[in-house]
Amino acid sequence: MDAEIIAIGSELLTPFRQDTNSLYLTGHLNQLGVEVAFKTVVGDTRAHLVQVAKTALSRTDMIILIGGLGPTEDDLTREAVAAALGLELRRDPELVAALYARFAALRRQMPENNERQCDVIAGAAVLPNEQGTAPGQWIEGNYAGRKKIILLLPGPPWELRLMFEKQVLERLRAALPPAFIATRIIKVAMVPESTCDARIAPIYKKYADVQTTILADAGEIQLHLRSRTDSLAAAQQRVDALADELEDELGDTVFSTGGESLEQIVAYYLEMRGATIAVAESCTGGMIAERLTSISGSSRYFLGGAVVYSNELKTAMADVPELLIAQHGAVSKQVAAALAEGIRRRSNSTIGVGVTGVAGPTGGTEEKPVGLVFHAVADGVQTEVVERKFIGDRERVRRWAMRQALDLVRRKLM
Amino acid sequence: MDAEIIAIGSELLTPFRQDTNSLYLTGHLNQLGVEVAFKTVVGDTRAHLVQVAKTALSRTDMIILIGGLGPTEDDLTREAVAAALGLELRRDPELVAALYARFAALRRQMPENNERQCDVIAGAAVLPNEQGTAPGQWIEGNYAGRKKIILLLPGPPWELRLMFEKQVLERLRAALPPAFIATRIIKVAMVPESTCDARIAPIYKKYADVQTTILADAGEIQLHLRSRTDSLAAAQQRVDALADELEDELGDTVFSTGGESLEQIVAYYLEMRGATIAVAESCTGGMIAERLTSISGSSRYFLGGAVVYSNELKTAMADVPELLIAQHGAVSKQVAAALAEGIRRRSNSTIGVGVTGVAGPTGGTEEKPVGLVFHAVADGVQTEVVERKFIGDRERVRRWAMRQALDLVRRKLM
Repeated sequence: MDAEIIAIGSELLTPFRQDTNSLYLTGHLNQLGVEVAFKTVVGDTRAHLVQVAKTALSRTDMIILIGGLGPTEDDLTREAVAAALGLELRRDPELVAALYARFAALRRQMPENNERQCDVIAGAAVLPNEQGTAPGQWIEGNYAGRKKIILLLPGPPWELRLMFEKQVLERLRAALPPAFIATRIIKVAMVPESTCDARIAPIYKKYADVQTTILADAGEIQLHLRSRTDSLAAAQQRVDALADELEDELGDTVFSTGGESLEQIVAYYLEMRGATIAVAESCTGGMIAERLTSISGSSRYFLGGAVVYSNELKTAMADVPELLIAQHGAVSKQVAAALAEGIRRRSNSTIGVGVTGVAGPTGGTEEKPVGLVFHAVADGVQTEVVERKFIGDRERVRRWAMRQALDLVRRKLM
Repeated sequence: MDAEIIAIGSELLTPFRQDTNSLYLTGHLNQLGVEVAFKTVVGDTRAHLVQVAKTALSRTDMIILIGGLGPTEDDLTREAVAAALGLELRRDPELVAALYARFAALRRQMPENNERQCDVIAGAAVLPNEQGTAPGQWIEGNYAGRKKIILLLPGPPWELRLMFEKQVLERLRAALPPAFIATRIIKVAMVPESTCDARIAPIYKKYADVQTTILADAGEIQLHLRSRTDSLAAAQQRVDALADELEDELGDTVFSTGGESLEQIVAYYLEMRGATIAVAESCTGGMIAERLTSISGSSRYFLGGAVVYSNELKTAMADVPELLIAQHGAVSKQVAAALAEGIRRRSNSTIGVGVTGVAGPTGGTEEKPVGLVFHAVADGVQTEVVERKFIGDRERVRRWAMRQALDLVRRKLM
């Protein structure tokens, strides 16, 4: 079945805001065997809304309208859908009573226009909203000679999600033919997108029945695999077979097959080995520490870090010898290694990480251009240093360098 | 004039990818007096594309189609728009020759299907693509009895932006009646969204002719003002009058009226005063250092930072007395102050910042609950500490705390 998702709200037509509910819904719909064929954004204008609802009715069998269910005059979704379907809108006295009771319980007077939220399209099932006042609506019926499902859901993401999971998912499962869909995610570190695609395209092209989506960020590529066949076992078998081939090709650049982030994998290895870590960062400016501490419970293995921008602090906080900086420059293999070794000794950690480079856009020289970064990992026995020349703006260079450093730690602990 | 933006590509109908080009285009269109009335996302399916193009032609006078201009069989935008308009598609021999020459210059053989990119809709002006191989197209004409502008632009954002700025903007200015639009952005630190709205709603509601958009993030609120009248002076006057009233109401919680980020404002004050800064972070885990160093040239004022998760490192890197931690706990007013003072002395900076708290979701106690954070700023004369209890998940608590610390520095330097 094909679906159209319609996000309603004039703010979604400004340069500042974007519909994100549709991404969440698409994930769930795909799992049910429903493909999203169209997405539309429309403002709080009655004529536009009716037009959009009619267009959707003419081209798909499932229509999900998000937003415009509140109490204000701008909230026109109920009216517009009723008009598009040629159905009546009736104020539900039970809903009205419940709404007044809800306000009374909060010792607040309900403005009368709130009653508009209790208008129900003839034949619709009401979907209670546990997080807000605007109920959703579920309409199932024959329109234009075909069976259609039409859903009205609230715009605030937390309201939409709870309502979808508690009220909608089961109804959809009951209304739709069973779908057999299997998915897998493979995450790859530090492979350029073009290189990755050149290596894996010959493989995934053999699997025409598995949908492969490639998402690339600085230093990380995600491969999303999805297969839909006439049995779950068959779908799983196809996805697993492709995943196995891809993993064989990509080898140890694959860091996760279960959806985990690179920092989660590093955290997992550190905990498994009872190891601790400390970092001394120059050009990444705290980004590595920030990622490692984004995980709850990271205090078990993350001891601390030094962000050492000035040469003086490289010496004062990570014991990098002044002479070494004078001889090789702050951006050098030697200083990266000294940062990793110094912060490790200072903090008494199992692993020390050091990063120094030129993030740009200023500060580059012919010998040390923008994008040049040295990454070091020390474990007390051996210190490895990796030199890379990244391409992109400051933010991108810093993200590549952060991922390179985390990947070095992963490989050290693997 | 109303516009519809149509983003084309099956990947934009997955849970993983989102059209962002439309936000960029909306900003420019609004400046030209064009309102975006509809946004549509459609996959690489010929019938769907034709249907979407026809619907757009029936409801708006400007239609911008993004993507689907490449050389593969999935790239159907040219064909679909020609079909919707009832116009012929003609292969342009000059474009074909130029494309072969381009491949020859790169010493590469051009696959024949690349010629598809040289198909031009009858009457369209070709928009050269300096960043890629797929040219855009500009169609102006009467359809359904109305003058319409139809634009075909490439999907990759860097190609789209350069083409829009170099090829499209001037044409649009010439084709549209002059528009008089003034805008302002006011940014506010550390005011909860509901408090801010309660204070400013009575003001902006008086200015029905100025569109006010409120965007809230952890610790930061942006107010976007926009006015359109029959002269630029009148539009500017209305926006400025509202901005003045809002600034009066919000006082020194306003940190920017020129679009700058909080870290840029802090950087500006530090440079203006010839001051330097160093930070000692616990729960923010490097986020403050990361933000301060996200700015190019930050090495002029940012000396360094310590991310001190363990108690030992609080002592070793920021000279927090062990006894102080034992007496008051690591999350305390006293330790925050000691972190700020310690890192300041250690790094010889003008300003020292210290942050300690419970980011959660674990680690909270009755006395020190999740979300409790102490922020300190020391300048050698005086140390200020601000205690806050933030609400939200780990990421949100950390962002609030980062902004609170930067705002304290701003106020200290103001």
